[in-house]
Parts: sequence; C-alpha cells; structure tokens
Amino acid sequence: MAKKLHYFDVNGIGESIRYILHYGGQKFEDVRYQISGWPDKKVKDALPFGQLPLYEEGDRSLHQSLAIARYVASQSKLLPNDLWEQAVVDSYVMTIYDFWFTKVIPFVKETDAAKKATLKKEILDESIHFFFSRFDKVLKEHNGFFIGKLTWAEFILVGIIEAGNLFLDYEIEKNYPHVKAAVQKVLSLPGVKEYIAKRKVYAL
Amino acid sequence: MAKKLHYFDVNGIGESIRYILHYGGQKFEDVRYQISGWPDKKVKDALPFGQLPLYEEGDRSLHQSLAIARYVASQSKLLPNDLWEQAVVDSYVMTIYDFWFTKVIPFVKETDAAKKATLKKEILDESIHFFFSRFDKVLKEHNGFFIGKLTWAEFILVGIIEAGNLFLDYEIEKNYPHVKAAVQKVLSLPGVKEYIAKRKVYAL
Repeated sequence: MAKKLHYFDVNGIGESIRYILHYGGQKFEDVRYQISGWPDKKVKDALPFGQLPLYEEGDRSLHQSLAIARYVASQSKLLPNDLWEQAVVDSYVMTIYDFWFTKVIPFVKETDAAKKATLKKEILDESIHFFFSRFDKVLKEHNGFFIGKLTWAEFILVGIIEAGNLFLDYEIEKNYPHVKAAVQKVLSLPGVKEYIAKRKVYAL
Repeated sequence: MAKKLHYFDVNGIGESIRYILHYGGQKFEDVRYQISGWPDKKVKDALPFGQLPLYEEGDRSLHQSLAIARYVASQSKLLPNDLWEQAVVDSYVMTIYDFWFTKVIPFVKETDAAKKATLKKEILDESIHFFFSRFDKVLKEHNGFFIGKLTWAEFILVGIIEAGNLFLDYEIEKNYPHVKAAVQKVLSLPGVKEYIAKRKVYAL
C-alpha cells in the first residue's frame, strides 16, 4: 500500500517519523508544507483535528505524531514485543514530549521578547538539566538505550533534541554523554544516514 | 504480582486508569495523595520525573499516565490486537489529552482572575465544540465507539470529561449525544459501576 507522510518542511515532531520510516526501509512519499504558507485553509480543514502530521497508507489515514511514530516503528521493527517493555518505552517517549510541549513550545509561541528570554533562560538553566540528566542516567544504566536495545524511543529523543536545538540555538545534549552518544548512534543508522546526506539543512 | 497505583485523591488523569483496572477485575492497591500536602518532597523526589501517577507491579514500576493506562488496558482486554487499530485508538487518546493539556490545564494553572475568565470563555465557546463535535461524529459513525468496539479510548474520554467538568464547573458532553452516551456506557460497565458506588464524590 502506498504510504504518505504529510508534515511541514522542518524537523519538528515529524522528523522522527521520517527517520523511523527510512531506518525500516519503508518507501513513502514525503509530502511537505511550507510553514510560511500555513495555515493553508484547504489542507487544514481536511485534517481530522486541523493538525499535521498526517500519515496515509492506501485509503486509510492516521493523525497524531506519536500514534504515527509508534505505528511506523512497529513496521520498522522498533517496537518491542513484550507489553511491559512497550509501556516503559511509551513512558520515556511521553516524557520527551513533556519537555517539548511544556517547555520548548511555550517558548516558541511567546511573542513578548522579555517573557521569551525568561522562558529560554529557564529551559537552559533548569528544564534541560531536569529532563536530560535523568535520560542520561537511564541510557547509561541500559547499555546506551532506554530499555537496553534500540527502540523508537531513541528516535523520538533525537527528533526532539534536533528540533529543540534549532529553536533554542543551543546544543541540548552537550553535557549528557550518553544522550549525545544515542543521538550519534541514531543518526548513523543505515537508512537514516543516507537520508540525512541528501536532506536539506533545516533553518528557521 | 501485587499491583499499586499511586495518584492524587482526585479524578484528574488517574481516574481512567482506576476505571480500566476495575473493569478488568484487576486487584490493586489504590494509593492516594492529598493535593493539599503536595508536593510531598520525599514522595516527589522518589518519582522518576517528579510526577504522579506511578504504577507498580511487583518490583517494577511505570510512570506517565497514558503509558500506564495503555498497559493496564492490555491486561483488561481493552487494547485491540491489530496494530493499525491500536494506532487509531492512540490517535484519539492523544487528541483527548491535547484538549486537556493545551486547553484545560492552562486555565487551571492561570492565577490572574481576568485571564482565567478569558481562558474559560474560550474553552466553553470554542475548544469544547472543536474537539467534542469531532469526537461525537467519530462515535456516531462507529457504533458509539471510536473504532466500533470498546477500547481504552472511551475510558480516557470519560476520565478527561469528568475531570474537565470538575475544574470548569460545566457539563462538557451536554450538546454531544454520542459522547454523552459513551460516558454513560463506560460508567455503567461491570467493575466500574461498583467502584463508583463506593467511591467518594470528588470536589475541588
């Protein structure tokens, strides 16, 4: 069945899905929308809840980035079989998203320059350490992976770090050696590596 | 293995998990913390990311409400076997959480009275209709369930509606007959019904 991923022409919360698809050798049409032209009313009104990404497989479609990522991960052999292991992976994925949606996104959306600077300072001085020191510890204790082997959680980690670094003009992973190693590991994976070599450099 | 759910003594994002456990006849210790005494530093510092709920099964533990809900749902036969169906259910669950975390929680956290009133008006005049008219349509088209049969998504829907109603002093479901019917259906399920009959009435 023909696969299509619809998302903006940035990394954001869509790039992890692209990495997972490329890692699994899944052929898909990478449909991209320019943020400068968004919202495109015709496209937005056709989306189930007005949001990208949207994933299509034949005549069926799926919304919500984590629902899509988890599904394509199952097709790329990145979802463990054991239900408890799946749940532990889910818990880290959702915590990575907590960092994104409760810290980075409020900063991105803030339009008042002084408040924006305050939010950035809080992220750089506190939030990054709170989340990433804990991720680092978990990765250290589990052979470089969240549960001791490669799953889709490492892909979500890398996607959010890259998008965060772009918005914050920072290197989130710099003080966390096990996080940094996980990023390098994912970016060097077969399929991912070749995709990155051909991919444009994202900019704001 | 002994099961324990640690959460506040409110409905919030924990009550769906309690419903799912009771529906499945899963015995568990329902450990509750008073919000008035929170943060209890000793408890909070022992949590993986400082957050409740926490679920324990024997000597292993799991954080993040949706990771817990999905896992206990798998044990209560509320998780479909088909991976695509699982993903569609995930997508609705995450959209229900979008309503909670991007609309209700900012209102709950706002301390400025005027801004709080503005947020409440937006939720009552716009957000509820945006989300719940769409949920209503999906339920109508699928025999009263998100995917045509009972899954954990209906439990998450009910939990968030009840918690939202408590905070907003409102009846979110009142104009959405299929949502309202789904709420009644879940609350009348064996296990859930008996739990509710014994449960305290939540108040702010």
